[in-house]
Amino acid sequence: MGKTVLLAHGGGGQQTQDLIANVFQAHFANPLFTADDAAVLKIEQTKLAFSTDGFIVSPYKFPGGDIGKLSICGTVNDLACMGARPLWITCAFILEEGFELSDLEMIAASMAKTAEEAQVKIVAGDTKVANHGHVDKIFITTSGIGQIEVENHPAGHKAQPSDAIIVSGDIGRHGAAILLAREKFDIEAEITSDCAPLCGLVEKIMPYSPHIHVIRDATRGGVGTVLYEIAAQSKVGIRLKTQDIPVAPSVHGLCQMLGLDPLYLACEGRLVLFVTQDMAPKVVDLLKSTTYGQNAAIIGYVDGAQKPGSVVLETAIGATTILPRPTGELLPRIC
Amino acid sequence: MGKTVLLAHGGGGQQTQDLIANVFQAHFANPLFTADDAAVLKIEQTKLAFSTDGFIVSPYKFPGGDIGKLSICGTVNDLACMGARPLWITCAFILEEGFELSDLEMIAASMAKTAEEAQVKIVAGDTKVANHGHVDKIFITTSGIGQIEVENHPAGHKAQPSDAIIVSGDIGRHGAAILLAREKFDIEAEITSDCAPLCGLVEKIMPYSPHIHVIRDATRGGVGTVLYEIAAQSKVGIRLKTQDIPVAPSVHGLCQMLGLDPLYLACEGRLVLFVTQDMAPKVVDLLKSTTYGQNAAIIGYVDGAQKPGSVVLETAIGATTILPRPTGELLPRIC
Repeated sequence: MGKTVLLAHGGGGQQTQDLIANVFQAHFANPLFTADDAAVLKIEQTKLAFSTDGFIVSPYKFPGGDIGKLSICGTVNDLACMGARPLWITCAFILEEGFELSDLEMIAASMAKTAEEAQVKIVAGDTKVANHGHVDKIFITTSGIGQIEVENHPAGHKAQPSDAIIVSGDIGRHGAAILLAREKFDIEAEITSDCAPLCGLVEKIMPYSPHIHVIRDATRGGVGTVLYEIAAQSKVGIRLKTQDIPVAPSVHGLCQMLGLDPLYLACEGRLVLFVTQDMAPKVVDLLKSTTYGQNAAIIGYVDGAQKPGSVVLETAIGATTILPRPTGELLPRIC
Repeated sequence: MGKTVLLAHGGGGQQTQDLIANVFQAHFANPLFTADDAAVLKIEQTKLAFSTDGFIVSPYKFPGGDIGKLSICGTVNDLACMGARPLWITCAFILEEGFELSDLEMIAASMAKTAEEAQVKIVAGDTKVANHGHVDKIFITTSGIGQIEVENHPAGHKAQPSDAIIVSGDIGRHGAAILLAREKFDIEAEITSDCAPLCGLVEKIMPYSPHIHVIRDATRGGVGTVLYEIAAQSKVGIRLKTQDIPVAPSVHGLCQMLGLDPLYLACEGRLVLFVTQDMAPKVVDLLKSTTYGQNAAIIGYVDGAQKPGSVVLETAIGATTILPRPTGELLPRIC
């Protein structure tokens, strides 16, 4: 089949069939994977979650993951944040003419492995090839369907006064890992992305769903952006305790050196949760019992005394400052 | 908001929110459009069709359509081909830094208009921005869910011996239109793309679904590629009557001049159907009663005397030749 992606691989003819058979079907094999225009699926529940996400991360391989793993995690996590059990994924590839087929195979294998861990099936796909220079190597868009089994699913507008705010682990590792992988800082730091599928973690806590008002994954804008979004959607004020926010020492060090705020570094495997105060310790314990939630912590609460839409930080010595609002891009092509 | 797309529009912060509010929500407004990570949807049927398609067409505006219209039609048509009623669409944009916001607005308006015609709701989306030169202007990936209401849905492996083969209109107009829009041939020809949503057309014929074995939309590879796919999937031989294949005079003229075969020119609003011989005239009549099916015609049949997987052409004088197999790319970035 040659060693690189050709324009003909996107032409819809025999070479496209070969690419699908040799790379995608080989890795994504499952009885639902369609040879037709759409996958036909049977669902038990009538309440669905439906989401899409495009991935253009550069570099497409990084410590702790690659664009393939990221593209599955991103959509799986978006579904999980609605309290849904992710079931099916589609993936659309846009490839640059000349892209190495061995790398495409590595990415497909990574997608298949992540899908298996998340217990989702890849059921349909699409491949387009653009001329050299018209797309930077590889972009992947995944879409997913999940079924919602709970009566009251979490949503961004459901935060309540006095809710505890939980993060499911130390923050900012994805952003820090991409920054180090891309730029030449001469900094020696062992930082791997937190990129991970979080549906198992959500499944664990969903029995307590009436108490879980909001779940959101902190992705490109980091935890700070998510908190401002939820403060606005739920029309509440938020108070964070700076010293309770888990940050890995290596990420902390990098932020100090570069003048960055870990609250605005991207994560790809971290949830932000708003949970009733009485149930919050139980939820943290459950999160800590999972692979990806071991550093879960309560980092603040919804503060009725704060202006709706605001996020304030309380420092270790009790001083209070306003968290700067998210704006602009810290780093393009982070995900 | 400025006049062009900035990297910050893809950063996930305030500018991303502004772009969503001012361009996408403004055009896609409907109660299901989500501000959360996934849209929450209620479905009546438990049998779904789920499909995805990436669009990288160049130029992104062409006679008869644009990438926005195309991106809705493509996914709507893929769902319709499974006999499904398209319900919901997600769209993921990958934009080049510097892209004109007025063009993005034109594209969003075009998507909204096409979605309305097809009676689908755009329920979720994603926007990424890549640096100048990392993506050529605009790529859109749409995904869709449809509900399947019939017992026996059509599929590519269901063609039967003696089935009549129908096309829903004259073929090759999308490919011809893009070719003329892109290249400088000094050819004066009025050719508009056939780009159209075909769900209404499928809905019209679905009452006869037990007789409709295969429906597929002939896209980038043209009708010839679809016929070879179905011949392989259904393990049947196909015989076409050359003089019965509808081709617009302008497309015919262009093909003569450039040495192209209209059977291998892309369509974006044409179905290929395999229907029991007794019911085929009725299906053609129903197709002809629709806006996009006026030139529907029976172009051949499944021929038990032919080798499975083969497609042969019968000329007006009765001679028989093998249709050359589809291979390579006629034109990159056709859709």
